[in-house]
Amino acid sequence: MFDKMIYLDNSASTRLDEKVMDAMKPYYFDTYAVATSEFGYSMGIDAKEGLEAARGIIATSLGASAEEIVFTSGETESSNMAIKGVVAALKKKKGEHIIVSKLEDFAVLNTAKNLEKQGYSVDYISVDAEGILDLEELKSKIRDDTALVSIQHANQEIGTLQDLDAIAKICKEKDVLFHTDATHSYTRVPIDVSTTPVDLISMSAHTIHGPRGVGALYIRKGTPINKWMDGGYQETDRRAGLENIPGAVGFAKAVELVTEKETEFLTSLRDYTIERVFEEIPHVTLNGSKTQRTPQNANITFHYVEGESMTLHLDMRGFAVSTGSACFSRSLEASHVILGIGGDHERAHGSIRFTFGRYNSKEDVDAVVDAIKEIVSQLRAISPLYNK
Amino acid sequence: MFDKMIYLDNSASTRLDEKVMDAMKPYYFDTYAVATSEFGYSMGIDAKEGLEAARGIIATSLGASAEEIVFTSGETESSNMAIKGVVAALKKKKGEHIIVSKLEDFAVLNTAKNLEKQGYSVDYISVDAEGILDLEELKSKIRDDTALVSIQHANQEIGTLQDLDAIAKICKEKDVLFHTDATHSYTRVPIDVSTTPVDLISMSAHTIHGPRGVGALYIRKGTPINKWMDGGYQETDRRAGLENIPGAVGFAKAVELVTEKETEFLTSLRDYTIERVFEEIPHVTLNGSKTQRTPQNANITFHYVEGESMTLHLDMRGFAVSTGSACFSRSLEASHVILGIGGDHERAHGSIRFTFGRYNSKEDVDAVVDAIKEIVSQLRAISPLYNK
Repeated sequence: MFDKMIYLDNSASTRLDEKVMDAMKPYYFDTYAVATSEFGYSMGIDAKEGLEAARGIIATSLGASAEEIVFTSGETESSNMAIKGVVAALKKKKGEHIIVSKLEDFAVLNTAKNLEKQGYSVDYISVDAEGILDLEELKSKIRDDTALVSIQHANQEIGTLQDLDAIAKICKEKDVLFHTDATHSYTRVPIDVSTTPVDLISMSAHTIHGPRGVGALYIRKGTPINKWMDGGYQETDRRAGLENIPGAVGFAKAVELVTEKETEFLTSLRDYTIERVFEEIPHVTLNGSKTQRTPQNANITFHYVEGESMTLHLDMRGFAVSTGSACFSRSLEASHVILGIGGDHERAHGSIRFTFGRYNSKEDVDAVVDAIKEIVSQLRAISPLYNK
Repeated sequence: MFDKMIYLDNSASTRLDEKVMDAMKPYYFDTYAVATSEFGYSMGIDAKEGLEAARGIIATSLGASAEEIVFTSGETESSNMAIKGVVAALKKKKGEHIIVSKLEDFAVLNTAKNLEKQGYSVDYISVDAEGILDLEELKSKIRDDTALVSIQHANQEIGTLQDLDAIAKICKEKDVLFHTDATHSYTRVPIDVSTTPVDLISMSAHTIHGPRGVGALYIRKGTPINKWMDGGYQETDRRAGLENIPGAVGFAKAVELVTEKETEFLTSLRDYTIERVFEEIPHVTLNGSKTQRTPQNANITFHYVEGESMTLHLDMRGFAVSTGSACFSRSLEASHVILGIGGDHERAHGSIRFTFGRYNSKEDVDAVVDAIKEIVSQLRAISPLYNK
């Protein structure tokens, strides 16, 4: 329908990088055996080498050791495994209390809610108007029976970055394990586990032009964690299931392809978007923090306008942006993130998330802002709220 | 090292079919958005159409409805989800007893063992010398508090096919849910859920030249099953996690590419292998059934010879076959399958599994049998057991 769809929803999913595909192909077509150890045949040993090289790349990116990385089917599995695995291991030794933030993405949030149904006690820590966690509340809520704290590194909708170091140190001091969902920050905002005492990190390939259905979990050596997915003895007996070697290799290649220069470029696109919108369109609110923000995210509420109308109008002009969380597409429920930072339903429903990726340009930003200017003024012209 | 490795381990993993890659590519490079409903943008709606078309193809292959198919990361996840999801849903309503066979692959077997540790009661049903389930024992073990029976359709090592219809009907009569792991039969041996009252079926793409890290679970409409992977509301709120749309589309294409003619060809390779080995090599035993057997599997014990030596020697000549279960590659433990059919450690360790796939030929069989003849006679010549 359009020569080129301008895609500005790279936190939801990204176009695969051709170089990632090139890295995956040999493991689909040439070295397609299962990873085998010394007892297997050479194609399996070659496959294992490819898998372990990929593991090493992910580990290095975090300052971790290769044996601390487990490949999974994505962030959702990583977070399920981290939280359910740790609470199962610590149920008797520590207790049945966990702590999460109010802004977590669904994998963490709904795992916490499910545990609550099973009898666990869960505290949901508040955030301020920019989405930044209340560290004092966190400190006060950690108890002797707290098995795990799970606080995201970056928010999926408004891009707010937490002070991972401060949170990790609080947990470390109180001797409680700390998991973070780093899906929306991984590779874009450095994490170094050699200086930040985080115990578990969920990651996903799909936000950085890697393959879908592939993720990883960093598990600090010595962390008590039960196996969650039962079956074979893959991943040094921590995660069962035939290894997705092409996927792991593709994920590692995607990590290698992210550069500081690119991240700076995405930051410039983000800032330019916010700047133009705030200069040229009245009645707008930036959701999230101006400074503690992922490089790729701009989330703006256009007041007196419905986000759903905006996305539809933008779509008709060839732009893909999202409203609320991408995962909300099933419903018109208000985003728990915007509500969590003190926004009302009007603000939640009028919010638009732009997330920039490798294939975006300054021209894309100019085109989408020009389109939004027109659409917003058209929609406001017929809005009873705007005109009253 | 070789111009062409002759790969005869297609139950462990398969070479991707180029046509599968061609089907996946548009969802990596053009329609890479998340699947969205009517509230999303058009690229997401196109992505959803691709996903739903793939679901329809899997459903049709089983005589099921599309809404009865859930995509997963593979058989291991499917079986974890099926078993853990059903027992969680029926814990209070039915009870904490489950039944599996002694020959299950690790996803089912180790899930059962894990549940046992948690206090569930598990019965492991015996099989005869060919690996065929004792139906009378199954009947006698079903109790009022039995939540689930999980019996594989085809064995991963010896290829024995169970009488799925008979098992399903026993379960139906006794009003107990029935799950089957069909990883090694799916598409090669028909299953029709409209006539066979099976409630849950685990499937995987990796055995039929589809992508790694992709599987599905058939869930008969109305089956009580709790969500196992918590998070977003994907897969009609039955399995959280960003959909792997390229993977699902590739799986569906792999299903479409399997033809009856190809399956007949694999059967002929299997039979020709067994025939030549039995005519030309003394002291051999066929593991599994001669007739109730998957088309692609030949599993033979070469007595007085170690399977590990055989696979290494074959590897040096450019042939990939496996000994024991592929998943055993981590260790030299004897296969529970060969022990389960009454074999001893010697028989288990001397067993070689050939599994044929799309890229094998009659010439491959001739070459591997010629090689085995030589290797077996060399190894037997130095075997103290053979020469005593």
